[in-house]
Amino acid sequence: MNKNPNILVTNDDGIFAPGIYALWEAMNEIGQITVAAPDSEKSAVGHAITITDPIRVQEVSGKNGYNGFAVKGTPADCVKLACSALMESTPDIVVSGINSGANMGNDVIYSGTVSAATEGTLLGIPSVAFSLTSVRGGELTGAQAVAKNIVQKVLEYGLPKGVLLNVNVPNITYDKIKGIKVTKLGNRVFKDSFEKREDPRGKYYYWMSGEHSEDNEDGTDGVAVNDGFVSITPVHHRLTEHEYIETLNTWNF
Amino acid sequence: MNKNPNILVTNDDGIFAPGIYALWEAMNEIGQITVAAPDSEKSAVGHAITITDPIRVQEVSGKNGYNGFAVKGTPADCVKLACSALMESTPDIVVSGINSGANMGNDVIYSGTVSAATEGTLLGIPSVAFSLTSVRGGELTGAQAVAKNIVQKVLEYGLPKGVLLNVNVPNITYDKIKGIKVTKLGNRVFKDSFEKREDPRGKYYYWMSGEHSEDNEDGTDGVAVNDGFVSITPVHHRLTEHEYIETLNTWNF
Repeated sequence: MNKNPNILVTNDDGIFAPGIYALWEAMNEIGQITVAAPDSEKSAVGHAITITDPIRVQEVSGKNGYNGFAVKGTPADCVKLACSALMESTPDIVVSGINSGANMGNDVIYSGTVSAATEGTLLGIPSVAFSLTSVRGGELTGAQAVAKNIVQKVLEYGLPKGVLLNVNVPNITYDKIKGIKVTKLGNRVFKDSFEKREDPRGKYYYWMSGEHSEDNEDGTDGVAVNDGFVSITPVHHRLTEHEYIETLNTWNF
Repeated sequence: MNKNPNILVTNDDGIFAPGIYALWEAMNEIGQITVAAPDSEKSAVGHAITITDPIRVQEVSGKNGYNGFAVKGTPADCVKLACSALMESTPDIVVSGINSGANMGNDVIYSGTVSAATEGTLLGIPSVAFSLTSVRGGELTGAQAVAKNIVQKVLEYGLPKGVLLNVNVPNITYDKIKGIKVTKLGNRVFKDSFEKREDPRGKYYYWMSGEHSEDNEDGTDGVAVNDGFVSITPVHHRLTEHEYIETLNTWNF
């Protein structure tokens, strides 16, 4: 293991979110850090990238020496830009989070936090996404210890090409966490509903709302986290459904 | 096959793009259409959804009876909103495109066009994304005929749960198209580069640029389209890397 690895830290909650500061603190004990993160909250932007607008970058700093690049773009933009233009060399690992709110089951498709890790993986860099199951504040110290543990393991063992780790941490104190479970993405889905409202000028708009379903299948991220474990799910983006190619070939287009 | 299916038409180039009008024309020959598409271009937004802003919707119309919902949101928003709130019943199929520009290989991760189809699939609706390998204008009549053919087949045979069809059409006249090939997503990737510029006030910004690599592996979408064929790739979003779970379990966290 590289004694002083280059670590790219990013997130989707914005560069001044408590979660990324906590992740920076934890990673400081492992290696050299570059922070490149959106200048404002970019939750649920999925794998959006900015191709039709210029991307502004500002160097910012905070308490205890925290500093980084605030990027007017998405998490995937941050990773691309950091690896291509902001960092002197390719990072040894991309670490994203600690997200405010779980990213389990289908969430990973919408998650900016996970997409940053996906982008790292597409660039050939081992990448990990961390999320905490609390949408406000939360027990970041437990997630910090978990992040340090897992990132050290990834730096030691590496990851196969195309595979990222999606980590979810229950929002409980570190001593209450029961352990780490390697899981699969669960069946937890977000059930949409839309609330229609009228603005003061008589025009309509909608708010997306809804709620997550419960996960109840053994071996899933949702069940592990509900039971007080950290879930680690290996994720890949090989999207071709090979099994269906033969059937499609019988369609006689 | 339903004699008068409900078809949801969307895209990522915006509701007044030539490609969606062409798709609407082609689908008009098959069933009842609802158009719900972004009010402006949303290319490369991936699977972004709008959760922190209200979503405005305006009914718009164009030539020859073309009409639909212009949504201030992403392609995935359009599908969610149409299926949950704008349409009277769930559509029989979601059709996205015709995109201005190919969506092959890794493009599908960034593509708003494909993400609209992904969202349809997540909602349990058979979904197809169409892209034309031309970034301006192009031979839309060929793509129209292709779209009509494929959508009729999907309505007849259905698609397995979770599988969408990603269709790319070469930008040549219909009589020059050599046929349809069922393919896998290729190795074509976009190689990023960023151009740094200084604005008139001395501040820096970046433009994302770069270019696609060539695909040269047999059986891929890129090779089929380069050879003058339409490519149809079945795509799923089961993202768990099951093969790696056993290895991760040996990591002794």
